[in-house]
Amino acid sequence: MRETELIRSLRAVRQLSDREIPDDVLQDVLEAGRWTGSSKNTQPWDLIVVRNRETLTGLSKCGAFAGHLAGAKLGIALVMHGDDPWTCMDEGRLMQNLMLAAWAHGVGSCIGSIYPADNERRARDLLGIPNSLSLRTMLSVGYPAGPQALRLPPTARVPRGRRPLKDLAHWESFGNHSDRGAAG
Amino acid sequence: MRETELIRSLRAVRQLSDREIPDDVLQDVLEAGRWTGSSKNTQPWDLIVVRNRETLTGLSKCGAFAGHLAGAKLGIALVMHGDDPWTCMDEGRLMQNLMLAAWAHGVGSCIGSIYPADNERRARDLLGIPNSLSLRTMLSVGYPAGPQALRLPPTARVPRGRRPLKDLAHWESFGNHSDRGAAG
Repeated sequence: MRETELIRSLRAVRQLSDREIPDDVLQDVLEAGRWTGSSKNTQPWDLIVVRNRETLTGLSKCGAFAGHLAGAKLGIALVMHGDDPWTCMDEGRLMQNLMLAAWAHGVGSCIGSIYPADNERRARDLLGIPNSLSLRTMLSVGYPAGPQALRLPPTARVPRGRRPLKDLAHWESFGNHSDRGAAG
Repeated sequence: MRETELIRSLRAVRQLSDREIPDDVLQDVLEAGRWTGSSKNTQPWDLIVVRNRETLTGLSKCGAFAGHLAGAKLGIALVMHGDDPWTCMDEGRLMQNLMLAAWAHGVGSCIGSIYPADNERRARDLLGIPNSLSLRTMLSVGYPAGPQALRLPPTARVPRGRRPLKDLAHWESFGNHSDRGAAG
């Protein structure tokens, strides 16, 4: 199915091109973020769109896995109104919607983590974010630099692919990987 | 755009019908979950599909907002390998993929929170989940009970709609809602 193929095919893209992102594409991505569901519809977030090269370079130094921000066409800061598990989960839902909406337009993205605390402080200063709010993640956004940008580089420090479904999925109770359960 | 319309249109559906969910639809939803990206591709999760009515009824009593599980055609438990902010964010990404994939097939869903700790313990017992793993959220899944199931009931205890984009989106720095920024 076309829509679920979009979901399944999403991958992090770290090498982004200089190609301009049209305003209507960015608008559509932000709208997908805006409509994200959240715990009790609290919408505990703000988004900052960053195009300034100097700011992006500064942000790229605020986390061991944030380097790709330096080469992003633009960055989106996910400014969260808390750091409890429910708010962090809402952050994940928001992040996924932004990434999928970009991907639907052929635009790649990659999450950059802002940590530890002193890096978060520096990033907050760069973006003028009040101390009462959290900045844990930035999204690098841009068209993929080329076909190689869609593949994990051989030097990547992460495992490849995904666990098989028969390992991941349990039926009726934890550890039951074979019996697919009965209707109640 | 069709794909982003899918993303924007996703809403929680609390009233679910008894209509059977075909195996290939469930499979497609689980595959969308399986392919979810996560921090360093750790895939810190397991999924338990629950169809047993007694188990669902028991789970529906394990959280103030989990009542809808009693009427779900099936439930999916998101068993997480941790409760740090990054793992909770990964949980949100996984949740969003599952909900969007279901929605792509016309299948509704609604998140049920499992809390506080004594409820989580009871829910873990019902599903045989080891103590080393976390269960914060269950997803109710089913076809919408009817057109009214797609609307928020008048008695709902949550705010309606979403904040406008001009409030949500900032440009280059926090608080700047008007200047859309310049390319660096």
